[in-house]
Amino acid sequence: MGKWAAGHYVKMVHNGIEYSLMQLISEVYDILKRGLKTGNDELAAIFKKWNEGELKSFLIEITASIFKMVDKETGHRLVDLILDRAGAKGTGKWTSQSAMDLSLPVPAIDIAVSMRDISIYKEQRTQAAELYQSEIKNFTGNKEEWLTQLYDAFYFATVISYAQGFSLLVKASAEMDMQIPLPDVIKIWRGGCIIRSALLEEFYNIYQSIPNLPNLLLDKKIAELLLKKESSIRKIIAAAVEMQIPVAGFSASLAYFDAYCSRQLPTNLIQAQRDYFGAHKYERIDKTGLFHNEWQPLPEHAEEQKPKHTP
Amino acid sequence: MGKWAAGHYVKMVHNGIEYSLMQLISEVYDILKRGLKTGNDELAAIFKKWNEGELKSFLIEITASIFKMVDKETGHRLVDLILDRAGAKGTGKWTSQSAMDLSLPVPAIDIAVSMRDISIYKEQRTQAAELYQSEIKNFTGNKEEWLTQLYDAFYFATVISYAQGFSLLVKASAEMDMQIPLPDVIKIWRGGCIIRSALLEEFYNIYQSIPNLPNLLLDKKIAELLLKKESSIRKIIAAAVEMQIPVAGFSASLAYFDAYCSRQLPTNLIQAQRDYFGAHKYERIDKTGLFHNEWQPLPEHAEEQKPKHTP
Repeated sequence: MGKWAAGHYVKMVHNGIEYSLMQLISEVYDILKRGLKTGNDELAAIFKKWNEGELKSFLIEITASIFKMVDKETGHRLVDLILDRAGAKGTGKWTSQSAMDLSLPVPAIDIAVSMRDISIYKEQRTQAAELYQSEIKNFTGNKEEWLTQLYDAFYFATVISYAQGFSLLVKASAEMDMQIPLPDVIKIWRGGCIIRSALLEEFYNIYQSIPNLPNLLLDKKIAELLLKKESSIRKIIAAAVEMQIPVAGFSASLAYFDAYCSRQLPTNLIQAQRDYFGAHKYERIDKTGLFHNEWQPLPEHAEEQKPKHTP
Repeated sequence: MGKWAAGHYVKMVHNGIEYSLMQLISEVYDILKRGLKTGNDELAAIFKKWNEGELKSFLIEITASIFKMVDKETGHRLVDLILDRAGAKGTGKWTSQSAMDLSLPVPAIDIAVSMRDISIYKEQRTQAAELYQSEIKNFTGNKEEWLTQLYDAFYFATVISYAQGFSLLVKASAEMDMQIPLPDVIKIWRGGCIIRSALLEEFYNIYQSIPNLPNLLLDKKIAELLLKKESSIRKIIAAAVEMQIPVAGFSASLAYFDAYCSRQLPTNLIQAQRDYFGAHKYERIDKTGLFHNEWQPLPEHAEEQKPKHTP
């Protein structure tokens, strides 16, 4: 898998992508179960169908079969008897922590780690549910249409998850001189692993032609694909947000996409603030270099004190 | 600030909250500027007004004055000349990394770190903007109404940012025996610092009566407050998502809230998947202990191989 600890790093990022995909599948499940009151047999049928198309993958396949599994003792579906407190062995967390050290954003993985973590505070969640009298709003709409949009939204976010993982491998490989052969990595993942997916075929072709492509999203075919699915993920998020269903993974994926596709971000303001309170300097659009400004409070606020800051 | 490295830890989390608040302010700015074509004078007036109410704070105050600052050389507003590539000294990142080590979710801080990181890839963003021909959708609606909702949404998310920071201090203090006196911390922050805010008065009272309250959201007064603002943040996110404006901080804050208020999360499915492919075991709702199931593929998939997994 390359030089130094490349093999370990590749496996770690594999697991980071796995966290993200599992989070997305759980959000689909949540929308379908709590939002649309979909039963286990129908859930199994939906995921079985999804597994017959372009999203055919190990995780979708086992998800379909999980909904069918009957608990021998009680006769209930086992999935309904499993406590919603997620465990973690740490590989997702390491992926996020390493990505942060490399200043390479993988927010879909970060949020998957967070959401597992939030799940363990079951008692607090129960208290909060009581206090806020939270209630999932009823779904009103055409179910078939909704299912198509949900599929497209999941498709979109799935591509984003892989894109974040691959971009991390490219950056980490360069920064730590690991010489990770990304096309080979994808070929091996395609052969069989938890994140095996029919999509890897196309990703392999892309990285085969440009092995150090910094981000999958910069590929034209991927752009064509995502542009077709884009309106669906927007609709699903807008609806889920109204229904009070947490769609952390979907939201982080779309926000990443929207920020990545923004020529101009509002971070110029953040740079101004940092220079205001900490003299951290900023770059300019009209000349190179680092600059500091002597900021002035608004006249009305002139009497107020600037707090001391030792960053 | 307590025992051991408590003072450093408190300052680190202070900065984590600061990252999150600055991200939220930048999203408000983005919505107003790119979404509603609001000019700098009006932006200054809006933030000046916000600074006169319950959200009075150092960051809002300096934001108002930043929009007024004129570049002496060019005569343009300085904020428009500052490059949108954000720097970071690492304290936000450390907060996220430490929170992940403690399994204590602070997704609003994580995403603020990610969004600064994404901003540095200016060239890739420019390429992507070209490729996806991204265009902010025009805002259609009543501007005054929108501003009220934006204020409430920002209010809501601001409380969530502090809640995440405080919950981290409570957990870290307990786990590392730092004996951090949270009411004193809040009192000092209230006295003067980057995240000084009128809101700290109420937070101080709350932690004064229950110093180890695990989460600010469990306080009744906070619940009353958030329930009043809740519909606004849902509307703002739904609209921004349609307008193609990245609202990563708002989205992460609401998803955190919705997950935290969920008696039942879809993480039972994640536990089933983990047990399926890695025999990681799960808890049950009807009896205590850890359990493993011998999962079976759906009959139609019986011929497919289960990938090997060594976690």
